[in-house]
Amino acid sequence: MKFHKILIANRGEIAVRIIRACRELGIQSVAVYSEADRNSLHVRLADEAYCIGPTLSKDSYLHLTNIMSVATLTGCDAIHPGYGFLAENADFAEIVESCNMTFIGPSPQAISRMGDKAVAKLTMKEADVPVIPGSDGLVEDLDQAVLIAREIGYPVIIKATAGGGGKGIRIADNEESLIQQISTAQQEAQKAFGNAGVYLEKYLTGMKHVEIQIMADKHGNAVHLFERDCSVQRRRQKLVEEAPCPVMTPELRERMGQAAVRAALAVEYSGAGTLEFLLGPDGNFYFMEMNTRIQVEHPVTEMITGVDLIKEMISVAEGNPLSFNQEELVIDGWAIECRINAEDPDRNFMPAAGQIDFYLPPGGFGVRVDSAAYPGYVISPHYDSMIAKLIVWGKTREEAVSRMKRALAEFAVEGIRTTIPFHLKLLNHPKFAEGDFDIKFLEEYDVNTP
Amino acid sequence: MKFHKILIANRGEIAVRIIRACRELGIQSVAVYSEADRNSLHVRLADEAYCIGPTLSKDSYLHLTNIMSVATLTGCDAIHPGYGFLAENADFAEIVESCNMTFIGPSPQAISRMGDKAVAKLTMKEADVPVIPGSDGLVEDLDQAVLIAREIGYPVIIKATAGGGGKGIRIADNEESLIQQISTAQQEAQKAFGNAGVYLEKYLTGMKHVEIQIMADKHGNAVHLFERDCSVQRRRQKLVEEAPCPVMTPELRERMGQAAVRAALAVEYSGAGTLEFLLGPDGNFYFMEMNTRIQVEHPVTEMITGVDLIKEMISVAEGNPLSFNQEELVIDGWAIECRINAEDPDRNFMPAAGQIDFYLPPGGFGVRVDSAAYPGYVISPHYDSMIAKLIVWGKTREEAVSRMKRALAEFAVEGIRTTIPFHLKLLNHPKFAEGDFDIKFLEEYDVNTP
Repeated sequence: MKFHKILIANRGEIAVRIIRACRELGIQSVAVYSEADRNSLHVRLADEAYCIGPTLSKDSYLHLTNIMSVATLTGCDAIHPGYGFLAENADFAEIVESCNMTFIGPSPQAISRMGDKAVAKLTMKEADVPVIPGSDGLVEDLDQAVLIAREIGYPVIIKATAGGGGKGIRIADNEESLIQQISTAQQEAQKAFGNAGVYLEKYLTGMKHVEIQIMADKHGNAVHLFERDCSVQRRRQKLVEEAPCPVMTPELRERMGQAAVRAALAVEYSGAGTLEFLLGPDGNFYFMEMNTRIQVEHPVTEMITGVDLIKEMISVAEGNPLSFNQEELVIDGWAIECRINAEDPDRNFMPAAGQIDFYLPPGGFGVRVDSAAYPGYVISPHYDSMIAKLIVWGKTREEAVSRMKRALAEFAVEGIRTTIPFHLKLLNHPKFAEGDFDIKFLEEYDVNTP
Repeated sequence: MKFHKILIANRGEIAVRIIRACRELGIQSVAVYSEADRNSLHVRLADEAYCIGPTLSKDSYLHLTNIMSVATLTGCDAIHPGYGFLAENADFAEIVESCNMTFIGPSPQAISRMGDKAVAKLTMKEADVPVIPGSDGLVEDLDQAVLIAREIGYPVIIKATAGGGGKGIRIADNEESLIQQISTAQQEAQKAFGNAGVYLEKYLTGMKHVEIQIMADKHGNAVHLFERDCSVQRRRQKLVEEAPCPVMTPELRERMGQAAVRAALAVEYSGAGTLEFLLGPDGNFYFMEMNTRIQVEHPVTEMITGVDLIKEMISVAEGNPLSFNQEELVIDGWAIECRINAEDPDRNFMPAAGQIDFYLPPGGFGVRVDSAAYPGYVISPHYDSMIAKLIVWGKTREEAVSRMKRALAEFAVEGIRTTIPFHLKLLNHPKFAEGDFDIKFLEEYDVNTP
């Protein structure tokens, strides 16, 4: 099967990214947009564009019926969900298939199994993927929680099974704290996610966030495309990502990659996916979660492998076998991504929506910009605050770091505050230069006194 | 030796390119500018910037004394000439050295030997580099010209030894025409270049312009960085360049590469240089000229090798050995460059200077833009008309071509006419898609009826 027309159920830079891939593949693209996004770049670049509702996401980008109506009326073969919004919504994937269109992503079953954190963890254990020591699935009652915590040792972390992205998490340093927090955590989870289930895990320290990109087809083939280090996080939001990981060894890469491939095969995965791991200073790694979609930080993997992940997702969704095997994939150089947000780093990253009066992205060798911004563009306060992803490639990490500093320094965005000054300070920090940072780095590091 | 400060004796995108390399290397950059270039990007991006004279190039970018004054007063260690202006001026290179600064390029002797076309040809013959059949050096008189032409066969081409870039050239189809043209050609050469010397060559047809990038250090090491196909030319001006060449074979690449390295060693070359060859349909190639500087089209080589040629030029000028050997250089993928000019392709490429009202370069995977343009920038009628170099990389030529079409289509330049529509038509031409074109392609191809 060859797709003729794809609807992109998203906005911003990822919509632009997917439209670009469609254009290069000779596939027609259909953009959808909310009333607030009338003047967006994805609307201008797509072959067709349709308004699907008011500004609020629930009335537009999350409005299944409106999106499916556009897809049907415009004769689309497939829908690409991007990331966020409907990307990990198994119901949406099912509706798309029931309308005789292809959901560009894994099966609804795979999405469901990985979306429920406790189920995911059990699945991974069965597939011999290392998981964080903790409860086998949900905690049944307080007594069981106390016994488990004694076994794995404090501190422990209480996680809502329906949570994710840092939401629904509590930490207990001792038995008293655990007893106090467990029922509160359950009540909160019920309220926030409609699911009271919580599970326990050992709370690990000195950990890096290292994730493995995988790609699988519908014929049972799965490969990994190496790792990304996403340890630079603020309040569990990634700010800087790089590939490869500065502390990786070929042997550890092999073990993590094989674990990720086992995970993909265990859920009969197809498309692009990411296994997120915590990697300890001792070289042990533990499954955190699987993201069953393309990720914001996918470009760093593209830059070191030469593989266009969005095109490969489309090809695999068309039913083609993977266009490469594991042996053909090699790492060439080093890539770093900085997420440039419309936020004021001097005011605790307060969102800074508004009009971009002057805009000139950096250019030259090894510089890639994925963005939906343009001169005159108005950053809406209603959606995420990302202005651009600035990605650089260098032959070595040192070259990539110096190139990123150069590119950040010449990135001109006037009219609103951005996180560019923060990134410049961060990249000049000795710990970043050495690659010596874990997920607590930004908590301990004062951006204003590097 | 490590440079601390480099003066860039140029303007536009190549000045920006060199400033970027300096920034990444931690070297201070000094820009110079004419009165017309007061608001140029190279002025804004450099660490320091000084006006060196009025708009006309002879009063500013070619004004040796003013440039050397700035270099001396700001304490520069070295001068990078870019391309054009003073880049192949042996006197300038000598003056720079006599001021105890380093000229980032080859020795004045190497520039001189390659700058005189007849001397260059003899030098190449001695180095066993194939040259176009013709006179050994300058034609002495009419009788000798007639004898040589009979030996190599008509048509023949009469070239001024001091010419270049397509200037000072005449073609004779038969003896009568040769007799008519030879003294006219000598008189014209005397007038245009102050040197009446002309030489004869066989006029070859069906030829591609294929050039080899070389890089050499001051320790006797020289390597080649493969070829570029620059056959898409209009009035001998290159418009599209790509690497590798679509008709290249590994065996031919090896032969051409080795010839280029022999050429470099023959003149004790150091720095970046290019051997320009004509490549015939029979696989024979002939030396045309050597450009003893960085070239406009250098980015396509950077994209397939990962080597930053400007940084390597600086490193070699500092006295370091080459940072790679021949075996470490490999071709990864395919790169194409389109020169986007401020010209109206519908009106015979008439220059279209003026203000750029809206400017948004394309982005995303595999897209590189080297430009000094920005929103509001005024293209001056006094200098060359290039707005930007759009370079793309793809895993295959097919991917690179589709990516270039995508990037051209989204490149937004409003307020002036550009050659973007021309490039889009060209890339859609079946002969371009097949890689089946020689240097006469654009003469035979009507851009308005592809």
